[in-house]
Amino acid sequence: MDIDARAIAARCGALLDQMRAARPLVQNITNYVSMDIAANALLAVGASPAMVHAPEESPQFVALAGALVVNIGTLSADTAHAAQIATTAARQLGRPWLFDPVGVGATDYRNDVATELMENRPTILRGNASEVMAIARLAGLTTTSAAPRGVDSANTTTEAEQLCVELAQRAGCVVVATGEIDIATDGKQIVRLANGSPLMTRVTALGCSLSSVMGAFMAIAPPLDAAVAALAVYGVAGDMAAETAQRPGSFRVAFLDALDAITAADISARLHVKL
Amino acid sequence: MDIDARAIAARCGALLDQMRAARPLVQNITNYVSMDIAANALLAVGASPAMVHAPEESPQFVALAGALVVNIGTLSADTAHAAQIATTAARQLGRPWLFDPVGVGATDYRNDVATELMENRPTILRGNASEVMAIARLAGLTTTSAAPRGVDSANTTTEAEQLCVELAQRAGCVVVATGEIDIATDGKQIVRLANGSPLMTRVTALGCSLSSVMGAFMAIAPPLDAAVAALAVYGVAGDMAAETAQRPGSFRVAFLDALDAITAADISARLHVKL
Amino acid sequence: MDIDARAIAARCGALLDQMRAARPLVQNITNYVSMDIAANALLAVGASPAMVHAPEESPQFVALAGALVVNIGTLSADTAHAAQIATTAARQLGRPWLFDPVGVGATDYRNDVATELMENRPTILRGNASEVMAIARLAGLTTTSAAPRGVDSANTTTEAEQLCVELAQRAGCVVVATGEIDIATDGKQIVRLANGSPLMTRVTALGCSLSSVMGAFMAIAPPLDAAVAALAVYGVAGDMAAETAQRPGSFRVAFLDALDAITAADISARLHVKL
Repeated sequence: MDIDARAIAARCGALLDQMRAARPLVQNITNYVSMDIAANALLAVGASPAMVHAPEESPQFVALAGALVVNIGTLSADTAHAAQIATTAARQLGRPWLFDPVGVGATDYRNDVATELMENRPTILRGNASEVMAIARLAGLTTTSAAPRGVDSANTTTEAEQLCVELAQRAGCVVVATGEIDIATDGKQIVRLANGSPLMTRVTALGCSLSSVMGAFMAIAPPLDAAVAALAVYGVAGDMAAETAQRPGSFRVAFLDALDAITAADISARLHVKL
Repeated sequence: MDIDARAIAARCGALLDQMRAARPLVQNITNYVSMDIAANALLAVGASPAMVHAPEESPQFVALAGALVVNIGTLSADTAHAAQIATTAARQLGRPWLFDPVGVGATDYRNDVATELMENRPTILRGNASEVMAIARLAGLTTTSAAPRGVDSANTTTEAEQLCVELAQRAGCVVVATGEIDIATDGKQIVRLANGSPLMTRVTALGCSLSSVMGAFMAIAPPLDAAVAALAVYGVAGDMAAETAQRPGSFRVAFLDALDAITAADISARLHVKL
Repeated sequence: MDIDARAIAARCGALLDQMRAARPLVQNITNYVSMDIAANALLAVGASPAMVHAPEESPQFVALAGALVVNIGTLSADTAHAAQIATTAARQLGRPWLFDPVGVGATDYRNDVATELMENRPTILRGNASEVMAIARLAGLTTTSAAPRGVDSANTTTEAEQLCVELAQRAGCVVVATGEIDIATDGKQIVRLANGSPLMTRVTALGCSLSSVMGAFMAIAPPLDAAVAALAVYGVAGDMAAETAQRPGSFRVAFLDALDAITAADISARLHVKL
């Protein structure tokens, strides 16, 4: 039940303009590695980042924010507690929240925390193929996926696609698996995008930062549209950056510049929708 | 009671040379977003950064440092406790300390922590207009300012100016409000500078890093002089960077290069003092 | 008992190729300042970084990782506990681990934590001259070194050399002291390298990131070989970066690019072994 590619590109471009006009405040409970780049990615693309995690203030802040993004990369008991409080508030307030379960599947602790957080029903779940497959396993779905290797994926998103659909249905959320091909599904529709550069895996926390950027779109659009728009903007910006930078240090700089430079016209001209 | 512009520029340039010769050790209890860029800004401008926060060692370290900078961006109970211990030590030892109350006004918790820290009487208070106005309200001054939006200001520094003067008098510290026009006042004199680029708001934690750089000047000069010198160096470096970089990723790089490159002559040639 | 320079360069180049082929997973318990740059340095040089510290999962993760790197830059009771748990697991599992005792000697607390961690017998100890001398003092060796100034060294590595050898013997580990001349010793052999740029001290956490890169080599080679290979790669990459960037902001970018670009041939052509 794929959607027409040109319509997808036009919709993504319109959402980019709409998001920039709204400049949504995105609350992030994220890992220490991605703090800088995620905040910079949000600023570059045109949103307003806030890295706020204290349980003492999170519920009050969630009410101010347009969306909440939770990432467990540098997990600790404090982070787990902060995420629990914030996502509970988000659920109660009806605020969209995104879960990025970095490294889930690697340790029992990470699995336990992820399972708990899933109970607060994220609006979007985003990870690499291995992470999404690990969440599917934790949700009781059957999978024969390989174990992830640290925080890197051991599977392709194509291998994970069917499981993404099942997980979206089971968990009642949009599931996004990113890799060479990015997949977003609400359990009914599947959108596959094939933009982006291999260099994006050579710069730390670009996946985490995508989750934050997806949060900005989630603040102004329905979940599947938000997911696809964020993937489109991110992937096309990656293509644009790869035209001027061939190594990871300069790619990171060029990518932030591209998130600032990208327009709806760039998306229309470059978006690669796999039908 | 403004001071002559040329004399201000000359004084700022002299303090830059003096600060670089002294290479002061600046202790920072800062947020996770700004750790990297604040340390890099201090190194680039010629100071020596240390990010030391543990209550177990802070009092001993404060005694070694030329100045202490406290920033509550990614506030937690641990940060609040660490800041309390360190600022108490700074007050007792007579070490200058700067308070950057990021996001104050947004939540009750942030207001409570800020109120407590103000009791240790910062040497300099630095924030955007909304943050400084929020501190003024907490200090019992009357203001009709808008609530901040996350960590962004909802007011201009011009709107905040009179309140800055009153707050400086009430709190007995130098108050610095940064924005399109930067204001520094000790409650008697007011200095207004109008350098810098809009791109500085598109790179995360450049405000936090300014606080750290101000800490370096605070280690070698009286508070108002230190505040004005840091604003001058930072704003002129922003102007220099904006000549070579037009987007946030490359601006960040160019700005750190400019903090390294800037000389007293650049300040004399470019400082824009508003009389 | 120095080794022939050409053979050292050839061996370092071979280990670089071998490390990239293995793409080892390196677990880092590191400070907040270095999180981003250390992960990026590992990715750029060809390894796989994971910043995992929670005591709840560390022992399980250490078993997955090829090496563990512990850095106490932004020390706290939580970090100290996390490092204790992880290094105990590393010792028990026979996983190589590297200790980077940032700022040791500056406070009693830092000395206490470092002393405790040394009991888990690091495979490699890496610091600047002052830090290594402080560890030597804590290990009961006699030294007349100056106290460090914050996190900067107050001594040269040449002053520290004899003490490095004694410490390596006493602690049963490889000791690496970095500075204008980098020294690595297992208590018998001493290797001295003289590559790198002064700009490397003007970018924050490049020392910490070297420790992480050394972790990648430690995962695939004996400790002294790993130490020398990491020093060689890092120093030569610094030389390469300094040819294209003259200021700290752009040097940081160029350095990450150089870690990606560097080949065995670059090491053979440029390595400066001091005999």
